[in-house]
Amino acid sequence: MRITRHPDGRVLSTPLHLAGIGLQFFGAGMAISAIVDLIVDAEDFGPLAISAVVLASLGTIARTNTAVPGRVSARSAFAAVGWTWVICAVAGALPFWLAGLLTGNETFETWDGALFEAVSGFSATGSSVITDFDSIGAGLMFWRQMSQWFGGMGIVVLAVAVLPLLGVGGMELMTSEAPGPTSDRLVPRVSETARRLWMIYLAFTVLVTLSLLALGLSLFDAVTHAFTTVSTGGFSPNALSIGEYDSTAVEAVVSFWMIVCGINFALHWSALAGRDPRVIFRDAGVRFYLFVLVAGTLFVATVLIIDGLAVGTALRDAVFNVASLGTSTGFGNLRPEGGANFVLWPPAAQLALFYLMFTGAMVGSTSGGLKLLRIRIASQVVIRQLQKVRQPRSVPLVKLGGSPIPEDIVSRVIGFVLLYLGISALGTLIMSWLGIGLIEAVSGAVQSMGNMGPGLGEIGPAEGFAGVPRPARAVMMALMIIGRLEIFAILLMFSAMRLSLRRHGQSDTGAPLEPLIRHRRNT
Amino acid sequence: MRITRHPDGRVLSTPLHLAGIGLQFFGAGMAISAIVDLIVDAEDFGPLAISAVVLASLGTIARTNTAVPGRVSARSAFAAVGWTWVICAVAGALPFWLAGLLTGNETFETWDGALFEAVSGFSATGSSVITDFDSIGAGLMFWRQMSQWFGGMGIVVLAVAVLPLLGVGGMELMTSEAPGPTSDRLVPRVSETARRLWMIYLAFTVLVTLSLLALGLSLFDAVTHAFTTVSTGGFSPNALSIGEYDSTAVEAVVSFWMIVCGINFALHWSALAGRDPRVIFRDAGVRFYLFVLVAGTLFVATVLIIDGLAVGTALRDAVFNVASLGTSTGFGNLRPEGGANFVLWPPAAQLALFYLMFTGAMVGSTSGGLKLLRIRIASQVVIRQLQKVRQPRSVPLVKLGGSPIPEDIVSRVIGFVLLYLGISALGTLIMSWLGIGLIEAVSGAVQSMGNMGPGLGEIGPAEGFAGVPRPARAVMMALMIIGRLEIFAILLMFSAMRLSLRRHGQSDTGAPLEPLIRHRRNT
Repeated sequence: MRITRHPDGRVLSTPLHLAGIGLQFFGAGMAISAIVDLIVDAEDFGPLAISAVVLASLGTIARTNTAVPGRVSARSAFAAVGWTWVICAVAGALPFWLAGLLTGNETFETWDGALFEAVSGFSATGSSVITDFDSIGAGLMFWRQMSQWFGGMGIVVLAVAVLPLLGVGGMELMTSEAPGPTSDRLVPRVSETARRLWMIYLAFTVLVTLSLLALGLSLFDAVTHAFTTVSTGGFSPNALSIGEYDSTAVEAVVSFWMIVCGINFALHWSALAGRDPRVIFRDAGVRFYLFVLVAGTLFVATVLIIDGLAVGTALRDAVFNVASLGTSTGFGNLRPEGGANFVLWPPAAQLALFYLMFTGAMVGSTSGGLKLLRIRIASQVVIRQLQKVRQPRSVPLVKLGGSPIPEDIVSRVIGFVLLYLGISALGTLIMSWLGIGLIEAVSGAVQSMGNMGPGLGEIGPAEGFAGVPRPARAVMMALMIIGRLEIFAILLMFSAMRLSLRRHGQSDTGAPLEPLIRHRRNT
Repeated sequence: MRITRHPDGRVLSTPLHLAGIGLQFFGAGMAISAIVDLIVDAEDFGPLAISAVVLASLGTIARTNTAVPGRVSARSAFAAVGWTWVICAVAGALPFWLAGLLTGNETFETWDGALFEAVSGFSATGSSVITDFDSIGAGLMFWRQMSQWFGGMGIVVLAVAVLPLLGVGGMELMTSEAPGPTSDRLVPRVSETARRLWMIYLAFTVLVTLSLLALGLSLFDAVTHAFTTVSTGGFSPNALSIGEYDSTAVEAVVSFWMIVCGINFALHWSALAGRDPRVIFRDAGVRFYLFVLVAGTLFVATVLIIDGLAVGTALRDAVFNVASLGTSTGFGNLRPEGGANFVLWPPAAQLALFYLMFTGAMVGSTSGGLKLLRIRIASQVVIRQLQKVRQPRSVPLVKLGGSPIPEDIVSRVIGFVLLYLGISALGTLIMSWLGIGLIEAVSGAVQSMGNMGPGLGEIGPAEGFAGVPRPARAVMMALMIIGRLEIFAILLMFSAMRLSLRRHGQSDTGAPLEPLIRHRRNT
């Protein structure tokens, strides 16, 4: 791989430059965590401070010594974001690993345990290897929570905001991950768009923090849970997760915000910009999303009531867990005296939650999974086929919210859905070979791909992933990354690498990827 | 619903006429079973003889008093075959039900138990409510086996052979179910085609019988197992299924024939007609089919060997069970001293078998499931999408064996695949609500849709379905029918009924359904 340089001597590399910026932010986050550590219990100051210094330095070196090529194709940009993402995920493991190395933290004795926690955090999945929650210092816990906050929406928004400042048009990136605003409604310039999305994200974080403070949570608890609520990440500093507070009010507030953050952030922006919240409820995608949540809640509650649970408790547990899994957050509401552990629920309720692990929430949100937009398009493809059986000569179009979708987009979506299912099936097969049970393999693969957090069976909300064999955990990490970067980015990461190895230096002027979202104006 | 009549007074009804013919054949089959009963143990002569007389009479009445309309659209014909199928499946339950009623057979005390056995038989699924195999007389057992033989390929071939004799072009029916010959290679006339397929089917049955006789099986055992091998049905008169003989030779012969009968029968015909067996091995579909079987066998054998099984036993069990589940037959090779019960195998091996329950064997065979052709097309759709990510401007075609497939067919296949997955998921959810475990619900739904036989967990090859709650068994019956009639036929059954209710009498001249197979010439 030949190194190409800018006239001023800087190395031309989009991923290195972006990773530099990412590491600077990570360094800042770890510095804040170190301060929190000093204030609360001073357990992990060393690991956090060292990490902060190392990453900030590395980030600065990378940033100042590299430049982004003048012309970057969408595909290269896409690939660069993917590599940046992976570099940051690995870097995020540094404080955990150092805590295992320097302060004798038993949870992170192994480097792969630290990496698992970091990848799970940065991908906003929320699966954890921590079993003894008291053994983790406040600062390290703060970083763990913050990594989800960065990951859930942060890094990509940052990349999107930063890229155009570097002279690179990056609206195409919107396709890759979280924020998928319909470009014609938002301000066209990407950096501006990203800043606005960032503002909303920040505002939501503040609002969740204030709501939780109002309900009596400590500042630490409120902030750390706000981090993982708006990112639909699902990490909690408590072993019982949200159940620690055993409060219907807290669960209701958290449910509300998880649901809010499962909505396309572009819609939030439209509603805020036009000062008209009805924009959100007029959207067909939102209505479908709320329909799924309500139907799921009623189904689960009914199953629980038939199973003998009191109506109030059944509704409470159904609302919270459907919201948590329907947005791929993964918070639990395990109660101190037992209860609300969905792996102990009747099979039908577990299965409903399992389906939610697949579907995820809306495109353009921080949630994972297939995303409901794709489910809707796939359903429309089926419905079209059913119509054709009855009216063989008709050529019905696949429609969404009344307007037809180009066939090109339809086949892209269907290809994605089939690939997603195929990778889930393959991941399940590999994991089952690595020594875990059937239910654990299936739910483990699906929840990892969907960036959910807990699975079924022995990897439920009460158990965590410390008992999962290390090779199986490695597969789960791979699935988290594949799911978070929406598969195709992964492909481009390796394809771009191969291309650059083959053509070394030749300018890459591939056509920009047509963003999926451009065609969703009227939905 | 207005009754339309032929000028000579006969009622115009394709389903009634076809059902009449079907019931006549069933009557004949039950008469033969009654004779077998008399020869062997005379346990169920009454039920079989009564059923034979009743069905033969009903069949004759229906056949002589009805006529097929002069012009029948493919869609109506399709629907008629569906209704005929359901009528015959219900009629097939009569001897079981009467055995419960008249001779006190405890297995068939309930009408739905009898119906389950009949639907499972006629759909060539092979799930059974029998727990005490000694309590079933030889005649009733013979009918049970024969129902699979009729069902697996018979009824549709008959319908296809009979329809044109009634002046109805029926080649379109080939789309609906088992026999999918490529019309340009076979003799064009449907009745002739059907007769030839029937001859091959009969010849295979004789060959399997002779091979099993040569290996020392009794005439009864050889014939009854031949019935359910060529139909890839999987019923056995033995509680241990093929394992009863504890013979590697018997298992090898049965495996060979299951695999042969999982191949498109049109290819068998081509090979026979051209006296060139290489036709079969040159076919890309066959090569893919054999690849799946070999890969599955190696995978399962490896898992079993790592699990500590002797290499010879592991290979024997892997070959037999992969052949059995890969062709949706469902025979077991449980050994008298224990072993070869796949629900006790390591999760990875079970999962591989579970995937085979989904895939099925080749289109145009007697197997069930999604069929490998659809798997191949779905994979091609994914591969095309991956190519497009790297080469955004390319418009690659979906190809099969080198030749492109029309987009129309691609979307039909994808619609089918998604619908199949959706119905499996819905069936699983309903079944899990009806009081069975997660693994039983998932594998029960998938194996029923795929016309397999055994499932995983507590519905494995050793247990049977007597312990499954009756409502869950009802769902399984529905799934067996939906799977066997390939979903769309079910839809047409109800859509045709509604149309005829609405338009009553108006001639139905819809365009013929374009058969899927027409486009597979070069595969």
